[in-house]
Amino acid sequence: MCELLGMSANVPTDIVFSFTGLMQRGGRTGPHRDGWGIAFYEGRGLRLFQDPAPSCDSRVAELVQRYPIKSEVVIGHVRQANVGKVCLANTHPFVRELWGRNWCFAHNGQLTNFLPSPGFYRPIGDTDSEAAFCDLLNRVRTAFPEAVQEEYLLPVLVEACAHYRRLGVFNGLLSDGDWLFTFCSTKLSHITRRAPFGPARLKDVDVIVDFTAETTPDDVVTVIATEPLTEDETWHRHEPGRWALWRGGECVSEGHIE
Amino acid sequence: MCELLGMSANVPTDIVFSFTGLMQRGGRTGPHRDGWGIAFYEGRGLRLFQDPAPSCDSRVAELVQRYPIKSEVVIGHVRQANVGKVCLANTHPFVRELWGRNWCFAHNGQLTNFLPSPGFYRPIGDTDSEAAFCDLLNRVRTAFPEAVQEEYLLPVLVEACAHYRRLGVFNGLLSDGDWLFTFCSTKLSHITRRAPFGPARLKDVDVIVDFTAETTPDDVVTVIATEPLTEDETWHRHEPGRWALWRGGECVSEGHIE
Repeated sequence: MCELLGMSANVPTDIVFSFTGLMQRGGRTGPHRDGWGIAFYEGRGLRLFQDPAPSCDSRVAELVQRYPIKSEVVIGHVRQANVGKVCLANTHPFVRELWGRNWCFAHNGQLTNFLPSPGFYRPIGDTDSEAAFCDLLNRVRTAFPEAVQEEYLLPVLVEACAHYRRLGVFNGLLSDGDWLFTFCSTKLSHITRRAPFGPARLKDVDVIVDFTAETTPDDVVTVIATEPLTEDETWHRHEPGRWALWRGGECVSEGHIE
Repeated sequence: MCELLGMSANVPTDIVFSFTGLMQRGGRTGPHRDGWGIAFYEGRGLRLFQDPAPSCDSRVAELVQRYPIKSEVVIGHVRQANVGKVCLANTHPFVRELWGRNWCFAHNGQLTNFLPSPGFYRPIGDTDSEAAFCDLLNRVRTAFPEAVQEEYLLPVLVEACAHYRRLGVFNGLLSDGDWLFTFCSTKLSHITRRAPFGPARLKDVDVIVDFTAETTPDDVVTVIATEPLTEDETWHRHEPGRWALWRGGECVSEGHIE
């Protein structure tokens, strides 16, 4: 299994604090030694940092922790391999271009006997996660060769997630840089931070941050993770089957499947 | 205009030395202040480091210079913007998946009035370079929906390059992680280093490396750049219209178009 980290914010925000917590789970406080990755949208561009080495020892992870990259949408992942060997091509998040946008995806869970029919998008590595991402994009592209609004897109995403969930565990984060889509198959929690901001303490390492010093009163920042990252804040646990669409830190659409 | 850097080697080789020279041209010894990027293949995976900031001031470039990433195929670029604003989405190299492989491309030059017909691959940013890359992949995909050997692929690549060259300047580097394809429209030079290795001195910054200490007798490493990077070695200048395919540091196929 793996750990996921997502962020949606209404202003470019750095995620160093949450990332520092997540990275500890990559071999120090958690067993996820098989690589890590984090993607930061910057306009329509995407910065992707990845390493098949454990995040707690990674020089690239060290850079990301020291170099606050500000972004409105972030997707991060630390991996404990179950399907696919430990190598860069099997390291989340995965990225493909669709409709002239960068689509990015990370997965927690495992799909059993997942053999999607080949389509336009094809996996580069050999994980079930990347295969599911390609299948999902092939579904979207088949349904809509040209870009559509979220009201049309969401039913296709939700139906695909319902399908994957029947094959195993499928907690996932997906973004096109504008919105962040989350699906909870077994575990996902979020916290939305807004004024008045206060301090927070990481669970996995002795770090406290006072968000008052880091924010302005209008900032809205939602952080989503497989497990809560701080110990003195109230995280909202998602029910299995819950999906949500986030934009600018706010949940703009949500629903539930049985 | 921009500067290109490519490498093809028969063993995973670090390119820190050449990269250090190239980075100086990003605002120090050259005018290419509008971003830089470098892609390292690692198996079928690809590490991409990019920054729209000048390379000589970039913290990410600093990391890449201090952290020797070993790779058999590398594509690097420093940019001086002419088409498209300075932002991450317009920063070379560009990457797309085709046939389940990462394809990577960087361009030096400018194409005038380049408006390719829309196809499957679409530009994310607004450079002529990314538009040409998408057009090239659309041509390959249209000709060959499934992967083919290079003997079939090369005529499609060469014909596309001939077309782009008629529209302006098109020096380009393209790879699928296995081979490196180079096209010289106006300027491109290469050097193939093999035993006996000796020392070399960078043109752009006072750095000398003794490759004897860094290599084994069987290593073959070809470096390709728009302008020679060292001052005490003999670089081979490509004639305008020359294309070449490199694998494991060796030129395995080449040709010339008028």
